[in-house]
Amino acid sequence: MTVNDAEHSAMRRAFTIALNGPRGVNPQVGAVLLSPDGRVLAEGWHRGIGTPHAEVDALSKLAPGAARGATAVVTLEPCNHTGRTGPCAEALIAAGVARVLYAVDDPGDHSSGGGDRLREAGVAVEAGVLRDDGRRLLDSWLTVQRLGRPHVTVKWAQSLDGRAAASDGTSQWITGPEARADVHRRRAQADAIVAGTGTVLADDPALTARDADGALLPHQPMPVVLGVRGVPENAAVRRHPLPYLQYSGDDLRAALADLRERGVQRVFVEGGPTVASAFVRERLADEVLAYIAPVLLGGGRLALGDVGVATIGEAKRLEVVSVERLGDDLLVVSAPRAAMAAAAPRTDHHEEGDH
Amino acid sequence: MTVNDAEHSAMRRAFTIALNGPRGVNPQVGAVLLSPDGRVLAEGWHRGIGTPHAEVDALSKLAPGAARGATAVVTLEPCNHTGRTGPCAEALIAAGVARVLYAVDDPGDHSSGGGDRLREAGVAVEAGVLRDDGRRLLDSWLTVQRLGRPHVTVKWAQSLDGRAAASDGTSQWITGPEARADVHRRRAQADAIVAGTGTVLADDPALTARDADGALLPHQPMPVVLGVRGVPENAAVRRHPLPYLQYSGDDLRAALADLRERGVQRVFVEGGPTVASAFVRERLADEVLAYIAPVLLGGGRLALGDVGVATIGEAKRLEVVSVERLGDDLLVVSAPRAAMAAAAPRTDHHEEGDH
Ligand SMILES: NC(=O)c1ccc[n+]([C@@H]2O[C@H](COP(=O)([O-])OP(=O)(O)OC[C@H]3O[C@@H](n4cnc5c(N)ncnc54)[C@H](OP(=O)(O)O)[C@@H]3O)[C@@H](O)[C@H]2O)c1
Ligand SMILES: NC(=O)c1ccc[n+]([C@@H]2O[C@H](COP(=O)([O-])OP(=O)(O)OC[C@H]3O[C@@H](n4cnc5c(N)ncnc54)[C@H](OP(=O)(O)O)[C@@H]3O)[C@@H](O)[C@H]2O)c1
Repeated sequence: MTVNDAEHSAMRRAFTIALNGPRGVNPQVGAVLLSPDGRVLAEGWHRGIGTPHAEVDALSKLAPGAARGATAVVTLEPCNHTGRTGPCAEALIAAGVARVLYAVDDPGDHSSGGGDRLREAGVAVEAGVLRDDGRRLLDSWLTVQRLGRPHVTVKWAQSLDGRAAASDGTSQWITGPEARADVHRRRAQADAIVAGTGTVLADDPALTARDADGALLPHQPMPVVLGVRGVPENAAVRRHPLPYLQYSGDDLRAALADLRERGVQRVFVEGGPTVASAFVRERLADEVLAYIAPVLLGGGRLALGDVGVATIGEAKRLEVVSVERLGDDLLVVSAPRAAMAAAAPRTDHHEEGDH
Repeated sequence: MTVNDAEHSAMRRAFTIALNGPRGVNPQVGAVLLSPDGRVLAEGWHRGIGTPHAEVDALSKLAPGAARGATAVVTLEPCNHTGRTGPCAEALIAAGVARVLYAVDDPGDHSSGGGDRLREAGVAVEAGVLRDDGRRLLDSWLTVQRLGRPHVTVKWAQSLDGRAAASDGTSQWITGPEARADVHRRRAQADAIVAGTGTVLADDPALTARDADGALLPHQPMPVVLGVRGVPENAAVRRHPLPYLQYSGDDLRAALADLRERGVQRVFVEGGPTVASAFVRERLADEVLAYIAPVLLGGGRLALGDVGVATIGEAKRLEVVSVERLGDDLLVVSAPRAAMAAAAPRTDHHEEGDH
């Protein structure tokens, strides 16, 4: 069976309305119900833990029986388990939906299987519609589901030759205003922002997400300091709108687990070089952002230190996801080959999601 | 006066036929003569020292008087001096050409002024038509004219974090086959290929330009070794189709001057890190090619060492010319900001060209 234009646009619409929901422990999901002739009957999205799933939200907007013969277009495979809200697959069957399209398979052990359940009940099912877009929408949630920890972005700014500063330590500014603005936009998309004590003591960063005028953006990531050294009394991070957390940093997985407990799904690691290297070394970087300024510096102040590679066969291999020009600079976004592979097929490392 | 479509395509054609000429001490120049209604009357190009310039070559293909009222479309400003061949400006005037379009100003002290001479004689002149393309065509020749030395490309391969090898020295291969093929294509465009003794002793490179099957490409760059250590008896560079040259490397400008004397216009510096850094440090890199593999290596084997930068204000600032994806890798082509500025307006550092 093929997917028609109306269904493709319904899926794109579903991606958009999914973003109405909060990004947190639960996935952002959108659903659009189409009549057999392609008209939009209702839309729904998931508003967070304990609230109806997107499909049920959309169905609730219709009179009983009005969804009979309809097509449900959903960003995530309808769930098949009775969590706080009852399985969506059953709700769609009960409503008489004839056809279900979804983008991304549900990775959960207990929640997956909704597609099969629908098929058994005679519903036509089309999986993987605009799957890549769906995965992008859900990237951090999928990481949490599969790996049981928050999604980690490691960012650094470097010269073309891999330096973070000139020999005397001066580094303001290697990259230009466009690159710095991009960093702030991405900070605002994270739930937590991490810096090592080295950076806190050297640069006294505010760890806030700000606009070009220095005003705080609406969403602020929770500031996290890694390392045993104390944060000075007058440190800028103490004036962050959210109280900062501190972990010793000797067990990054434990720190991430604790952050997850606190509802953190996306972690933005700002550096410095020692902390960034530690995340790379321990294979905890799901996304790497290298802001590259076209300057050559030489010298010993490297943007990345020991990443645990002794010989070329051990190289941490990445895949370039995108290259962007930001003013004079480049942003190279990449992801570990292993992590990309892990994000594609099902693995055994997942936990139950509420969806 | 505006430049019409026929004239723009004639200029593009002139760029193409310019490449028929040899690249050497003289510029590659193409000329197309158009009738007043835009038909191509004749084409010409410059075949090297002592042969007619492109405009004269094109005129020579027409019967006397046939160029009266024609438009001459030339890649380089017609010369105004009597070299081995007589000034082209006078030849165009004598032929009755009504209009002359050219891309790039002649930078020579003695040869420039052709545009003004034509205007004085009542010829309509349009300068700077597709100038950027014209400069690209002539980049190395312009460097020679302005700086009195060959055009230098410095190339290296690096991990995203700026390493040339893993800690134990292993580096085969950081970049993939597409990147390596690109290097060979560019080697074949150079007149000389330079490697330090460190690389010769460590890697025993052939310093030839080869295709994917390892067969020699038609044009081979002259191999050049920099450093005082001897080249081993059985070194691959001794089997290069051209005999190798060796310079101590303590005076790079003198080495480049000698290469220019030998007719070298384009130099391709292959490394290693010490030699590449020396060219950057001495501001002798007109073009920088960084082949970046999306791998992280850490450790101390850097693709670039000391480039003479102590503090951020001294950073060697580049301008990104292009970013290309080559298989899994990236090629970032950049040029020093100073050199780009120098390439734009006229400077006092030029010498007489034969054109
Ligand atoms: N180019 C960039 O993007 C960028 C970004 C940020 C900073 N910087 C620069 O980086 C410099 C600071 O470098 P840095 O490397 O010292 O900073 P850092 O990475 O911020 O801090 C290093 C410190 O973090 C602690 N730490 C926490 N977890 C760790 C772990 N798992 N492994 C190792 N150490 C851990 C240790 O301190 P304790 O002894 O306290 O435990 C360690 O000394 C500054 O000059 C800053 O300007 C550059
Ligand atoms: N990633 C890449 O793109 C790339 C490319 C090539 C090589 N490599 C690697 O680089 C390693 C070799 O590194 P390297 O730095 O020793 O090689 P190198 O740059 O080829 O050679 C360094 C030597 O060149 C001589 N030299 C000539 N002119 C010089 C100058 N102006 N300044 C300083 N030295 C000058 C000196 O030797 P004398 O004592 O003989 O005078 C110096 O020790 C090898 O492992 C090779 O695999 C990597």
